[in-house]
Amino acid sequence: MTRQINVALLGFGTVGSGTAKILLEQAELLEKRAGCPVRLKWICDKDLVTDRGFPVPREILTDDLAKVMDDPEVHIFIELIGGLEPARTFVLDAISRGKHVVTANKALLAVHGHEIFRAASDNGVEVGFEASVAGGIPVIKAVREGLVANNIHTVLGILNGTANYILTRMTDEGMPFDQVLREAQELGYAEADPTYDVEGVDTAHKLAIMSTLAFGMPVGLDDIYTEGITRLSPLDIAFASEFGYSIKLLAIGRRHDSGIDLRIHPTMVPQKHLLAQVGGAYNACYLVGDSVGKVMFYGMGAGQMPTGSAVVADVVDIARDVFTESVGRVPSFGIPVDMLSQPEFMPMEKLSGCYYFRFAAKDRPGVLASIAGVLGKYNISINSCVQKGRGDQEGPVPIVMVTHEALEADVRKALKEIDNMDIVLDSTMIIRIEELDSL
Amino acid sequence: MTRQINVALLGFGTVGSGTAKILLEQAELLEKRAGCPVRLKWICDKDLVTDRGFPVPREILTDDLAKVMDDPEVHIFIELIGGLEPARTFVLDAISRGKHVVTANKALLAVHGHEIFRAASDNGVEVGFEASVAGGIPVIKAVREGLVANNIHTVLGILNGTANYILTRMTDEGMPFDQVLREAQELGYAEADPTYDVEGVDTAHKLAIMSTLAFGMPVGLDDIYTEGITRLSPLDIAFASEFGYSIKLLAIGRRHDSGIDLRIHPTMVPQKHLLAQVGGAYNACYLVGDSVGKVMFYGMGAGQMPTGSAVVADVVDIARDVFTESVGRVPSFGIPVDMLSQPEFMPMEKLSGCYYFRFAAKDRPGVLASIAGVLGKYNISINSCVQKGRGDQEGPVPIVMVTHEALEADVRKALKEIDNMDIVLDSTMIIRIEELDSL
Repeated sequence: MTRQINVALLGFGTVGSGTAKILLEQAELLEKRAGCPVRLKWICDKDLVTDRGFPVPREILTDDLAKVMDDPEVHIFIELIGGLEPARTFVLDAISRGKHVVTANKALLAVHGHEIFRAASDNGVEVGFEASVAGGIPVIKAVREGLVANNIHTVLGILNGTANYILTRMTDEGMPFDQVLREAQELGYAEADPTYDVEGVDTAHKLAIMSTLAFGMPVGLDDIYTEGITRLSPLDIAFASEFGYSIKLLAIGRRHDSGIDLRIHPTMVPQKHLLAQVGGAYNACYLVGDSVGKVMFYGMGAGQMPTGSAVVADVVDIARDVFTESVGRVPSFGIPVDMLSQPEFMPMEKLSGCYYFRFAAKDRPGVLASIAGVLGKYNISINSCVQKGRGDQEGPVPIVMVTHEALEADVRKALKEIDNMDIVLDSTMIIRIEELDSL
Repeated sequence: MTRQINVALLGFGTVGSGTAKILLEQAELLEKRAGCPVRLKWICDKDLVTDRGFPVPREILTDDLAKVMDDPEVHIFIELIGGLEPARTFVLDAISRGKHVVTANKALLAVHGHEIFRAASDNGVEVGFEASVAGGIPVIKAVREGLVANNIHTVLGILNGTANYILTRMTDEGMPFDQVLREAQELGYAEADPTYDVEGVDTAHKLAIMSTLAFGMPVGLDDIYTEGITRLSPLDIAFASEFGYSIKLLAIGRRHDSGIDLRIHPTMVPQKHLLAQVGGAYNACYLVGDSVGKVMFYGMGAGQMPTGSAVVADVVDIARDVFTESVGRVPSFGIPVDMLSQPEFMPMEKLSGCYYFRFAAKDRPGVLASIAGVLGKYNISINSCVQKGRGDQEGPVPIVMVTHEALEADVRKALKEIDNMDIVLDSTMIIRIEELDSL
């Protein structure tokens, strides 16, 4: 019988440090809880940094990956390198050697998840990925185990802390996107290249993982419509507020009779809804199940210690399985990979909902009539309309409309026509509205 | 090897029906997820009701408890009878026969938990109790497994849907307690005898369970200061709102250097805090851990299907352990009962915080000075004070104060003295304020 679980950590950056700190400093607590000692045997990184603000025994630090991979005593590899390669190669290598893997790498799982989970299944090892979605919030475990009695039909997530921080600042201070982003970069809340965060790609990675789990179907990045927050102006946020909404970068996954629909885009949610209250760098995942009804999980979606908390939770879970010889007790996605059903997707064109449009039109008589005429032609009916004088500003006048329920296909056709009109000076800003009934 | 898990349900009331409905209607889904068939073999109730809105095979319904208890094929007993006896006897009997138990019975666990978990440990069986706290929200699993890497130092809970519904209605409509309660009873949201809900007893049961789990110490009802919401008036709610607070019946558990403090009382929380946004019959559990930081779990804390969802989650968890022969993989409280540490409690008198007082004083010169004088004597400094004319109303004039941080012991002494003054006509209303820093 296994008497001690040995762990090797690959990657000693931010999350790696948090993970190592917990494993080293809370070793006694974790032993009580796991039922056996969980020992951090190796920290492997190409930079042999020892000073991360807590004492690291020199002898566990190494840059010799081959030695760590070859160590027959290691039960669990924690991959915190990030990115696709060499992370993918390391993970597949570890799996092929019969080692369990814990990772926080959402990009890796969203892109190569199929290959990795298949390999894990074939090799009889576990892959823990709690830290890959919503950081410290134990949402993967909640869906896979806590909500096991449910068919989940809705997943709504605020899954990127950087984007949510930027939107919160834009809302609270009325500041433009570029300025907030610059500030966030200076404070270390946003990366030098923020593309993944602000263009919704990181959120799409997480939705791919969450929806595979929640809907029991393999989902890839290509199945997700993805639109970021870079085009939002303080104007849109001010108008949203006037209409009673907050703008959030929402991950949306819904099960319809005709298939699932998956998308990431700036979304107006009623200001009174709990999701609208999720501010700053916090994340939230809101789910609706057929038995449990509405549930929401809230917490820090990133950061050294919160993400470390999720990584260590997976390590302890796997340690318990190894220790009680019940490896594979819960499959990665709640059911064996072979049982995932073939996904059917609902084309976005078939969705209907309410829309916010901001037209950039010439300040000239008849403009409103022309725009409204095109909308009417495509059965898009206007709920409210605001046109404000442009004051001292040069350039186009913003005309803002909120529609009644309309079909996405009609909206696309109408906007294409409108954006081609010579009275319209810039492409129309479109924000989808989620009329979440109530809490 | 076990090829099928057999389940017997004791109690076919509201939650029993929800549980049976899920086990019967979702049998195929649950088999995929549990890795083996989970079969509802018996529904045992003294009333042989068959019509619960879904088809129940007549042959699984029985009122013969002895037959069910003696059935060697049953692996898991689900106790949904409620109350202390005969539930306690049945549970201990099942455990002594080597059967696993799942229960939603918070009163039973809060009062007889020590005996039950000890017996389970001695007999090598599992006791699942996810449904006993916060209904469908998988908060027990979250704390025990998802947050395993954390020392939890704060637990804040809105754990009684009836009380929260009443407070929400009082807040939204300005209605008095009695009227809302009567309405809630007519709608079936409150029981004929609402004592446990409105006096905080049910919330205390749940805090006892949550704090045993979160702090790793056995906690009993006597360790919890418990105060209900029956004395709150619409006046208090209106004043709270004026000061920027909402009033919630909060379960509070905190780990201090000198011990843990546990209490249930009406609490003012900042209106902008996420807990203040939890309305109606919803529950929320807000936790702070040393690694994860702040997390919150939100959802329905009661009801047929949400509670059934939690019961079935426990059944599937135990089924997986039986199926993979890893019974006892996770101890009930995350660590073996022997390892629970002896609790030290911080006497409430030693706590300090801000307070709201509503004095019922005679409308006479010098009253404010006399009250303020006593407060000053006990080092209680006033942050703001509101005295409103009584208009056409007869009786005492409300004088309302919010204090700076003060010591509970001083507050108790001061109020004792003030309530004995002949210018004060009724005992002072006191509401504690939780200045939760931010989300």
